[in-house]
Amino acid sequence: MYHKNLLNVQKTFEIIQKLEWNTKKELINLQNGNSRVLAQEIEVKIDVPPFNRSAMDGYAVIADDVSKASETEPRYLKVVEEIGAGDVSNHVIEFGQAIKIATGAKMPMGSDAVIMEENVEYEGGKIKIVSPVNSNNDVALKGEDLKKGELIISDDQILGPHHLSVIASAGYNEIEVYKKPQIGVIITGNELVEPSTKLTPGKIINSNKFALKGVIEDSMAVAHIQQCSDDSKQLILAVEEAVDKYDAVITTGGTAISKGDLIVDIVEDLGNVPIHGVSIKPGKPFGFGIIKQTPVFMLSGYPVAVAVQYDIFVRNHILKMQKINKKFNFITAIAGENIRSSPDKYNVIRANFKDDTGVVYPIRTKAGINKSILLSNCYIIAEEGTGKIKKHGKCNILKYNTLKIC
Amino acid sequence: MYHKNLLNVQKTFEIIQKLEWNTKKELINLQNGNSRVLAQEIEVKIDVPPFNRSAMDGYAVIADDVSKASETEPRYLKVVEEIGAGDVSNHVIEFGQAIKIATGAKMPMGSDAVIMEENVEYEGGKIKIVSPVNSNNDVALKGEDLKKGELIISDDQILGPHHLSVIASAGYNEIEVYKKPQIGVIITGNELVEPSTKLTPGKIINSNKFALKGVIEDSMAVAHIQQCSDDSKQLILAVEEAVDKYDAVITTGGTAISKGDLIVDIVEDLGNVPIHGVSIKPGKPFGFGIIKQTPVFMLSGYPVAVAVQYDIFVRNHILKMQKINKKFNFITAIAGENIRSSPDKYNVIRANFKDDTGVVYPIRTKAGINKSILLSNCYIIAEEGTGKIKKHGKCNILKYNTLKIC
Repeated sequence: MYHKNLLNVQKTFEIIQKLEWNTKKELINLQNGNSRVLAQEIEVKIDVPPFNRSAMDGYAVIADDVSKASETEPRYLKVVEEIGAGDVSNHVIEFGQAIKIATGAKMPMGSDAVIMEENVEYEGGKIKIVSPVNSNNDVALKGEDLKKGELIISDDQILGPHHLSVIASAGYNEIEVYKKPQIGVIITGNELVEPSTKLTPGKIINSNKFALKGVIEDSMAVAHIQQCSDDSKQLILAVEEAVDKYDAVITTGGTAISKGDLIVDIVEDLGNVPIHGVSIKPGKPFGFGIIKQTPVFMLSGYPVAVAVQYDIFVRNHILKMQKINKKFNFITAIAGENIRSSPDKYNVIRANFKDDTGVVYPIRTKAGINKSILLSNCYIIAEEGTGKIKKHGKCNILKYNTLKIC
Repeated sequence: MYHKNLLNVQKTFEIIQKLEWNTKKELINLQNGNSRVLAQEIEVKIDVPPFNRSAMDGYAVIADDVSKASETEPRYLKVVEEIGAGDVSNHVIEFGQAIKIATGAKMPMGSDAVIMEENVEYEGGKIKIVSPVNSNNDVALKGEDLKKGELIISDDQILGPHHLSVIASAGYNEIEVYKKPQIGVIITGNELVEPSTKLTPGKIINSNKFALKGVIEDSMAVAHIQQCSDDSKQLILAVEEAVDKYDAVITTGGTAISKGDLIVDIVEDLGNVPIHGVSIKPGKPFGFGIIKQTPVFMLSGYPVAVAVQYDIFVRNHILKMQKINKKFNFITAIAGENIRSSPDKYNVIRANFKDDTGVVYPIRTKAGINKSILLSNCYIIAEEGTGKIKKHGKCNILKYNTLKIC
């Protein structure tokens, strides 16, 4: 089967987006939470600080006791104890007394202010104070950072290092996150072999495997890659196993009309194929099927088409599986030269955007030149009906570094 | 020891930058290359394509044979064979003949052009051709993507998915990359405990551990975290072991002047400490030492100071260890309100930058409020001598998302 009537890109998006995301949740140790997606709310479990504590290295005092201290009439306090960060004093401080205190240590009973070490003179067991301080001076008050019961982070948050730190402070050792989507990749093509310098005639190096592992990792998911020969029975088994085992399946190769192109028929037999053939350039033979609720993205064999099909149709779906709603972040750029596009297609043109000038230059290579992706930093997107974009005209671009989450 | 004369930030950078990076290289399988840094040049080992091949599903022909084909005088060719992508034909094509060919298949001997399947009519073993094609039409020529001997990627390149794909095509199964820096982290502080809702008096949850693991991962390095009590003997052992085992060491806590603050003295005993005390706010007690060539970054205990010290002094050094030369990417923003800064300090102020308006608003919380990092997306950097920044005035900001590599 091959839909001679190509589906337009907008309709393709709609069909794919209708599919519900389907990753589950899992409980992980907080230390493994960086770059994961939170699947719970974070409600603070304990006050932070849990008690009034010193915000400075200095001396705990009673503010009223030094309210009249001045250069001319200094106040002298006797240092009755010294407490480190993890220590707790049992001493109840009285007028005329001070306790040497480290940053973070619990304020001794009776004291209500800290005077910085630099602001006193110490001699013979006493400190000399020459200016008053307010109550709570350099004291971190119980609950001033986090209040017990406060909601501080919503679910669906992508966690960075400092989220983890705050979640730890809120009393959590474990958190619930969305499981990383497990993506089965089936590379078809009898001609494909591992990288080597000794290729037998007719063989081509399997480069898609490496690109797909990387783009799937960049989509915060896990790739399980296998190669399968263009043999009907083996391919059916591979697809059946993959849709059972993984959250989504990607295939490459075998979507067009030629000898040995089987995958679309197989997916249609096992489930259904709402999309085959899209008016996109490159990447026209894109197919999308569903088998037992599992999406199957059928990509081309050509690396350039695979890259475009992944970026335009697959990536955001895999992100959505873990509740990340990513949209394309189009930028308007100025065409640095005349740019041709097919008016009946959604054209995805590799190009180079100059941040300083806002001008974009298409990469001039034949369609199949994979290397061109290394020379480019964006796609020019020329939708259906655009046709020729004139030099100095405006066009929409999609920078590669805005496709990723980071 | 404590340098009462604080070192200025520029001098601090200079001292840290003098240190040579020191990661080694390792050979890895290409499939594990995503987000690694290449430590070799990539010189193409084989022509890609390795032979002339069909760029389309269609029919291989001799261009001269169809040079007069037209709607009124169509040319009919006999289809003598059919070859799939991995197959090779032994047939030498002659005038009057065509071979059905799949995209990617090697061009049969004698043929020099491909006619797309859509452009012919097939009937009874023959195809009808109604327009001529040029020699090499829809043929991917040997070496047109990659030429044997061509240098395509330089060393020090951070590898993305599509680099891997091109490197595979160039004939590489393994690549040499820089080892990920191994960073030993020693968390000091007797008061620090694991996240829990049942804190005994004087104890504080160790949140730095979680933040540091994350920021080190985000620096493309590996964190080895241990907690060590504020005991001189144990701390000496921990530091000695860590400098032997890891590429760099980070400590937290114990850099200021108070009871139980040992780390700076220990590092000075074991090596030397060119930096202790920097005119930065927050993060003044920052220390930097070297023991047997291994850098030791001594950070504060306070999470807010740790974050700033890491971002300003540590991150770029860890990146440089694997040959990534990252500089701060300052942006000029408009102050949304009056902003105070200490004129004798390099002030690093958590703030919120609005991309659409270019206006930045400082976060108004007490210095120790760790949560503030979640409310902010950038630092305002007010260097020494800046003092007050007036509302509507210009200031330099550093967006958090520009600190990372991605």
